[in-house]
Amino acid sequence: MKKIRAAIVGYGNIGKYVLEALQQAPDFEIAGVVRRNPADCPAELSGYKVTADVMALDDVDVAVLCTPTREVEKYACELLAKGINTVDSYDIHGGIADLRSKLAPIAEANNSVAIISAGWDPGSDSIVRALMQAAAPKGVTYTNFGPGMSMGHTVAVKSKPGVKNALSMTIPLGTGIHRRMVYVEVEDGYNIDDIARAVKEDPYFASDETHVFAVPSVDDIKDMGHGVNMVRKGVSGTTQNQRFEFNMSINNPALTAQILVGVARATMIERPGAYTMIEIPVIDMLYGDREELIRHLV
Amino acid sequence: MKKIRAAIVGYGNIGKYVLEALQQAPDFEIAGVVRRNPADCPAELSGYKVTADVMALDDVDVAVLCTPTREVEKYACELLAKGINTVDSYDIHGGIADLRSKLAPIAEANNSVAIISAGWDPGSDSIVRALMQAAAPKGVTYTNFGPGMSMGHTVAVKSKPGVKNALSMTIPLGTGIHRRMVYVEVEDGYNIDDIARAVKEDPYFASDETHVFAVPSVDDIKDMGHGVNMVRKGVSGTTQNQRFEFNMSINNPALTAQILVGVARATMIERPGAYTMIEIPVIDMLYGDREELIRHLV
Repeated sequence: MKKIRAAIVGYGNIGKYVLEALQQAPDFEIAGVVRRNPADCPAELSGYKVTADVMALDDVDVAVLCTPTREVEKYACELLAKGINTVDSYDIHGGIADLRSKLAPIAEANNSVAIISAGWDPGSDSIVRALMQAAAPKGVTYTNFGPGMSMGHTVAVKSKPGVKNALSMTIPLGTGIHRRMVYVEVEDGYNIDDIARAVKEDPYFASDETHVFAVPSVDDIKDMGHGVNMVRKGVSGTTQNQRFEFNMSINNPALTAQILVGVARATMIERPGAYTMIEIPVIDMLYGDREELIRHLV
Repeated sequence: MKKIRAAIVGYGNIGKYVLEALQQAPDFEIAGVVRRNPADCPAELSGYKVTADVMALDDVDVAVLCTPTREVEKYACELLAKGINTVDSYDIHGGIADLRSKLAPIAEANNSVAIISAGWDPGSDSIVRALMQAAAPKGVTYTNFGPGMSMGHTVAVKSKPGVKNALSMTIPLGTGIHRRMVYVEVEDGYNIDDIARAVKEDPYFASDETHVFAVPSVDDIKDMGHGVNMVRKGVSGTTQNQRFEFNMSINNPALTAQILVGVARATMIERPGAYTMIEIPVIDMLYGDREELIRHLV
């Protein structure tokens, strides 16, 4: 069977885990890795083509975009226009529908497929949220994140004057309410109280209970575990009090990478266009004979 | 907007809840109810056409099959051949792939759509199982049922000599192991010990811890609550110990009915053919503007 040729675009944290997930996937081969500085080539990339230009790679079926989220659109537009499928874990909730609208006509015109916002939230959680709503159309779903590091909040803290390094942990308090635990390495000449005030005034933190601490080393307390607890209580037909719950405790980039590889597989099946994960059949993400999967999983 | 015209075929426990779920769905109208004896017409069916023959109903888009599971194939074949979509909650796990293979060519040839085994297990649980496998391709998933009544096991008990009425409850013990609590109304002249022996020898019960009790009234202890606890511990890429869990506590026929209505909606979107739930996008089950759903759920 012809293997799916995947390019890894961007080689930060997610890119490294995507490499591992692709190496484990029997139906993929790695066409190469795209990074700004191709001379920066760690041991695990020896044996793979590393380049600054994805077009230098041969026969790429699908590009797994592991760039910062704000660069996803640019890369996706460019690659889809060249007939290369793309997948990404674009994670700005408010921008997802617009990104999809932007990419869809490009993909349709160039016979390519984009699957966007394919991580765990947005991503696999979105499928569970949609399924819970299908199971009980009336009701409220709460998505409780953590405990785990929030990238967005961490970046916001790092932007404050006097912050050398930072970590913002999300602690779930239930019903979608979160506490923010912020750990800061303070630059010489700055004061943790001033930094704490600036953080708490930031729109990212203003509506949440926030605690800010000075620590000697952020690296010493960082781990990549994360979690989610999603609950819905709702109504099926006219029957009240139907209860659903989904929990995960996971390595964050490892799960994101695995989902990206799953949807990369799915791009080979879907019709040209741009999709979020709730718009594709779950089976399309799985390796293996379709009939066997149905016998085993349904 | 033109509403989807649905027929309810079979009016037992599931059929009654499907009626309620359809009445709550803004995009459906009820074409009528099909039952063996159309003269048997309870109050809630007044105002609806009740007939023994589905072809007596006008412009049926989709038939919701609420018959016993063994009659699903017959009805589905007949209706799909007439260009009417069908949905069912066929629940014999070993027969699902074969049913799909049987219905697919009929649906394709007649421009109709079947979505089969669409309850909660098989059904919505199947989607979660497939998603968990996509998130961590290596690992084991355990599906723990209950506490709740098992239809199949109850029917097996009822078939034993001396059993006037029966109820078999499934109790989850974890890692997919279940205890069976069996409650029996004993006919005069029969002995509970003999019945217990016959039950424990039945292949339905032979491999499970089974307890059999005589009770004065089965109806007095029956409730339609049920539940599931699904867990997977597995590997994303090369990262071990990724943990996923899905729990529900639900009214069994109400959830089955709601899922059936969701997939009935989806039949209007899919291409002709026969599908299990893991083969259709979750969004297709939902009522509402697609773009809005994406903004809200992804």
